Amino acid sequence: MDNIKLVTSKGHARTTIRVGEVTIGKDFVVIAGPCSVETEAQTLAVAKAVKAAGAQLLRGGVFKPRTSPYGFQGLGLKGLKILVKAREETGLPIVSEVLDTRDVTWMSEYVDVFQIGARNIQNFSLLKEVGKARKPVLLKRGMYSTFAEWLNCAEDILSEGNPDVILCERGIRTFETYTRNTLDLSAVPSIKELTHLPVIVDPAHGTGRASLILPMSLAAVASGADGLTVEVHNDPKAALSDGDQALTPPQFVEIMRQVLALRTFMETLH
Amino acid sequence: MDNIKLVTSKGHARTTIRVGEVTIGKDFVVIAGPCSVETEAQTLAVAKAVKAAGAQLLRGGVFKPRTSPYGFQGLGLKGLKILVKAREETGLPIVSEVLDTRDVTWMSEYVDVFQIGARNIQNFSLLKEVGKARKPVLLKRGMYSTFAEWLNCAEDILSEGNPDVILCERGIRTFETYTRNTLDLSAVPSIKELTHLPVIVDPAHGTGRASLILPMSLAAVASGADGLTVEVHNDPKAALSDGDQALTPPQFVEIMRQVLALRTFMETLH
Amino acid sequence: MDNIKLVTSKGHARTTIRVGEVTIGKDFVVIAGPCSVETEAQTLAVAKAVKAAGAQLLRGGVFKPRTSPYGFQGLGLKGLKILVKAREETGLPIVSEVLDTRDVTWMSEYVDVFQIGARNIQNFSLLKEVGKARKPVLLKRGMYSTFAEWLNCAEDILSEGNPDVILCERGIRTFETYTRNTLDLSAVPSIKELTHLPVIVDPAHGTGRASLILPMSLAAVASGADGLTVEVHNDPKAALSDGDQALTPPQFVEIMRQVLALRTFMETLH
Amino acid sequence: MDNIKLVTSKGHARTTIRVGEVTIGKDFVVIAGPCSVETEAQTLAVAKAVKAAGAQLLRGGVFKPRTSPYGFQGLGLKGLKILVKAREETGLPIVSEVLDTRDVTWMSEYVDVFQIGARNIQNFSLLKEVGKARKPVLLKRGMYSTFAEWLNCAEDILSEGNPDVILCERGIRTFETYTRNTLDLSAVPSIKELTHLPVIVDPAHGTGRASLILPMSLAAVASGADGLTVEVHNDPKAALSDGDQALTPPQFVEIMRQVLALRTFMETLH
Repeated sequence: MDNIKLVTSKGHARTTIRVGEVTIGKDFVVIAGPCSVETEAQTLAVAKAVKAAGAQLLRGGVFKPRTSPYGFQGLGLKGLKILVKAREETGLPIVSEVLDTRDVTWMSEYVDVFQIGARNIQNFSLLKEVGKARKPVLLKRGMYSTFAEWLNCAEDILSEGNPDVILCERGIRTFETYTRNTLDLSAVPSIKELTHLPVIVDPAHGTGRASLILPMSLAAVASGADGLTVEVHNDPKAALSDGDQALTPPQFVEIMRQVLALRTFMETLH
Repeated sequence: MDNIKLVTSKGHARTTIRVGEVTIGKDFVVIAGPCSVETEAQTLAVAKAVKAAGAQLLRGGVFKPRTSPYGFQGLGLKGLKILVKAREETGLPIVSEVLDTRDVTWMSEYVDVFQIGARNIQNFSLLKEVGKARKPVLLKRGMYSTFAEWLNCAEDILSEGNPDVILCERGIRTFETYTRNTLDLSAVPSIKELTHLPVIVDPAHGTGRASLILPMSLAAVASGADGLTVEVHNDPKAALSDGDQALTPPQFVEIMRQVLALRTFMETLH
Repeated sequence: MDNIKLVTSKGHARTTIRVGEVTIGKDFVVIAGPCSVETEAQTLAVAKAVKAAGAQLLRGGVFKPRTSPYGFQGLGLKGLKILVKAREETGLPIVSEVLDTRDVTWMSEYVDVFQIGARNIQNFSLLKEVGKARKPVLLKRGMYSTFAEWLNCAEDILSEGNPDVILCERGIRTFETYTRNTLDLSAVPSIKELTHLPVIVDPAHGTGRASLILPMSLAAVASGADGLTVEVHNDPKAALSDGDQALTPPQFVEIMRQVLALRTFMETLH
Repeated sequence: MDNIKLVTSKGHARTTIRVGEVTIGKDFVVIAGPCSVETEAQTLAVAKAVKAAGAQLLRGGVFKPRTSPYGFQGLGLKGLKILVKAREETGLPIVSEVLDTRDVTWMSEYVDVFQIGARNIQNFSLLKEVGKARKPVLLKRGMYSTFAEWLNCAEDILSEGNPDVILCERGIRTFETYTRNTLDLSAVPSIKELTHLPVIVDPAHGTGRASLILPMSLAAVASGADGLTVEVHNDPKAALSDGDQALTPPQFVEIMRQVLALRTFMETLH
């Protein structure tokens, strides 16, 4: 991994990133919210629920990259304004995905953290553009990325001047069909060996099954992850995208209880 | 493949696309040129050589998507001007890759065919942007694309109003390491069953080995491909990118001889 | 590929293997027959049909390795006796798959060529056992084998004293679902660079679609393959296994016509 | 998964398997020992060390399936006799891999649990043969097995009359090269949804890196695994196989401490 000059763990202290009330890389961070921002009522309801359960950041998609041009494409600017309203009501900073180099500058006015999705992991123009932004970047692993390729993408961002990258394991495509992807938790300790950047886990996209989110969230904590990002919907069956893997608010409360208890235990173990 | 409404073969006549002197989808087309435009001298030398050998379009990269930010990034506008000069001298229309939504409009002034590379196959913003352009699009298969995913990308382009898409098989990533990718020639007859769009083959990226380009070019012709795209360099060992898989002009002449003879034979066979 | 001592192309003349009337590695060989031996009537009918169309060896499975224990498991010894009867009537030597180390010795009395299937590519006990046999071995590539792994399996056989191995590309598993596997024709020229052993192609298992067998057979010939193995059934819809990819006798006749014409043309091309 | 009749979780109580002092599927089980049995001194030293640290079963390979015929092939019967001696001295039951149908009967005299390795997951003859044995079977997932394929292999064993199958996740091949395989911990809760059989985890083969064994063992416990199998060697650098992923006895002691503490905590969490 010769090209990893800025993100290598060698000779670097671990990176911590302050966002709102949480210091990512030091505190355990939970990012929660709907897959897509659909309506103001839905978004505010979910935002209040996840805040009450202990989430520190609110996530919500307003541009939906879809395999088909005929699917729901997201609310765009209207959705961002809903997220801003949710931030005002809950105090939770906003994480939202950017898909197009032309959107980075103006979206900076709304979001607190840019998300780069798995599909854009080789969109080098976009990586460089968020590298010029002054907001942290949540960089999801590509569905096929090796650790070296993923870290090169982080290097692209840092090399443009933005040091605040949070890596997010979200599953890789394998031949398995029972799960939507194969969540690779060995990425957590591996990435920590290779880089000073924090690494969190997305157990919902990583498995595609709501029933697997709790055990895989606990396993992520045990593997040493710096946090989780999960999708919560007040009515998963009516969700416009990814309803199969969304948690209800009560499920999220229970996961938070177990995850935080385990995290506390893990700190006593080592 | 329910979402494929415009590109499905059902109820559509086969698409043909006129570019310069060649009707792609009817005539056998050969696109040749350097991986990257490096200098005017190199580009003109290669352009003249491939023209003399029978190529109908000139290819050359001016933006190089690279895994590392520290590699050669391409000449950009300067490179396009060199390609235009080569077009003036040889009459060959130009194919060049676009990487960024912001570049589509102004690049339309220079190129005859846009190329979308394998890394941008899920960059839906870019697909839609070339869908609004009035130039044909050479759409490479992603390194991991299934046929259904690839055709959905073509659907993205057609759904924006651009009917002129040429599909290009260029190999998929497998566990094999002897070849750089695994060239999937079964894509040729499969794609022809599924869609009315023409499909060509890139045997160089598909294998990553100069020694395999001739046999795989012949196999592509026998499988029914509508054409080939190959990289030719006047000095492969000095190439700034992909020298291992570039042909010298004499090698290209020999491949053209065998490919065209086989194509002629194939027309008598059925 | 340091472990490949006996199969490496370096310093070895190309291997040719005489079986019945054909010299594999020199003549173009076509192996044809039913996936499974089902009845004497079916086997004799197919054997006569493929003989008449020009096939030089008869294939037929009598032990069927199945993903489920509840599928058709093959006729065993009874099936071998049917194959022997078909050999007596047509003169075609027999190729049949062996699955168990305990079966190698007694099956030697019946078959002319042992087939090792893709599922047994890492069954090293079985590879060594056929390495002790005095019959040629048709060694299929594993669904996930790299060239290096495949050649190591051939090395296992040769290292036990049996020099007569024929390699057979039959497709690898990829993310594609339209085809059953992805036929890797780049294996043909690659394997010829790496080893002195002959290499043939199985276009039926490689694609799983009868409509793709003709174009992929022609592409295999153009890529330089030493032969083909195909499944022919007198009534594919009633076949107990793999009916989707079996050819009818008339389809096989047409494929033979085109394949042999192309092979003759290819010899004039180089 | 229509073919899974005997192993399906539907309508079955969870299977527990008594081996020596441990009830697998109820108690948390740790299987430990050298990759290969090399000498009596080495095996006895490791057996005593893992017994002292709390392991309940002793593992050790005496037949080594190798990619190359020129690697160390194992001690065979001599190795089994060494394992028996270690059992006599420590009381630990023995787990050892069987590779050949011909070895099942006589090996039954020596081993307490048969292991079927990843390479033999499609060796259906061998699966059926251990299905006839009266010893539990530790069935490793194949390097490429889907859950459905893996469970069909278990079905093969149960359908022959042997109900005592322990499944073992050991990593699947992906494009990642930093780890030797990708350990799929989502297999643990998924397999528990699908079947009544116990499932354990092999974090060493799953990652191929000694530094990842501790975090992945903890993650396996948190995911709900019924146990672990790990390799311990008194001198990993001198090991004849897989030394890179073997633990020293002191490392194993520390892993046992953390694993058992976490397991106890997990029982209080739900």
